[in-house]
Amino acid sequence: MDTIFDFIGGSYGEWEVRSIETICGNPLQPISHLRIIQSTLEKENQGAWTLKGVRSHLRYTEKHEKEQLTAIQAELGRSEAIYAALIPIRKNSAWWNLAQDERRIIFENQSHHTETGLQYLPAIARRLYHCRDLKEPFDFLTWFEYAPEHEAEFEDLLLKLRTSEEWNFVDREIDIRLKRKL
Amino acid sequence: MDTIFDFIGGSYGEWEVRSIETICGNPLQPISHLRIIQSTLEKENQGAWTLKGVRSHLRYTEKHEKEQLTAIQAELGRSEAIYAALIPIRKNSAWWNLAQDERRIIFENQSHHTETGLQYLPAIARRLYHCRDLKEPFDFLTWFEYAPEHEAEFEDLLLKLRTSEEWNFVDREIDIRLKRKL
Repeated sequence: MDTIFDFIGGSYGEWEVRSIETICGNPLQPISHLRIIQSTLEKENQGAWTLKGVRSHLRYTEKHEKEQLTAIQAELGRSEAIYAALIPIRKNSAWWNLAQDERRIIFENQSHHTETGLQYLPAIARRLYHCRDLKEPFDFLTWFEYAPEHEAEFEDLLLKLRTSEEWNFVDREIDIRLKRKL
Repeated sequence: MDTIFDFIGGSYGEWEVRSIETICGNPLQPISHLRIIQSTLEKENQGAWTLKGVRSHLRYTEKHEKEQLTAIQAELGRSEAIYAALIPIRKNSAWWNLAQDERRIIFENQSHHTETGLQYLPAIARRLYHCRDLKEPFDFLTWFEYAPEHEAEFEDLLLKLRTSEEWNFVDREIDIRLKRKL
């Protein structure tokens, strides 16, 4: 049961907020800090808001891609990676009503989601938390860690994803940039 | 938020237990009745045990299969369908460590999961509840409703699934047969 996490936005925590930008949909209440703790589904944590997410299996990744990802994967918590981004995302019902093969075609054949992410590894470490089945306000919490000198590349990665076919199905997205307290 | 359900095993409820059989893994505590209520992730309901599940999107179904399923789908709650089965299932880590395409090959190309289910529609209505991301003791709650005269077909359906390649990955399964209180 160690894989449920609370992302708690509030006035203290390990991560200082550098900026919050609402890309689409309703904004989140402004915060100055973020902390991340292992939690349970039952427990309600304090803060201006709490977003729950679970580590889960990959939903679209094929074997050859999984092997590439495993080979080049970057760990979280690297000492040089003092910048992070929490980007909660929700997709619309048109996406979720698609069949698996239709979603896969948009995700990879048209949008090159995994392929794009691979180009920025290991500089930009990524981790995905699922929350759709928890009936949370978002479907995913995406998390990125990188050194400050890689921020331009990070912008580049986001631009590629946000202009992809897949992103036409995103109806709520908040971009929260963070810096680890030293 | 109306899609989280509690399956509460206890001493009263809409469904009377006809039998409980542990197919593999740890058994569940015996019960005489089952009730199903809309719930929340936070709320703990009474009973000998409660299993939570959520209605979610299909994970392996391709477009052509989805169209067939939609065309022939049977509703729950048909007056003649006074028999039901709740079969909670857990799959092992070998399954969850597979890539999506590897799981799909086992699920459909080798095990014909969707194709088999289609053969028994509309006599046997099926509904799937997901609970893996809720960190519940099972990954899925499978639910079936049928008229008593279709029980032999139901046994047939289960036999086909349980002898499939996919079922080698199932490490916990409890078969609970029910009858609607009239």
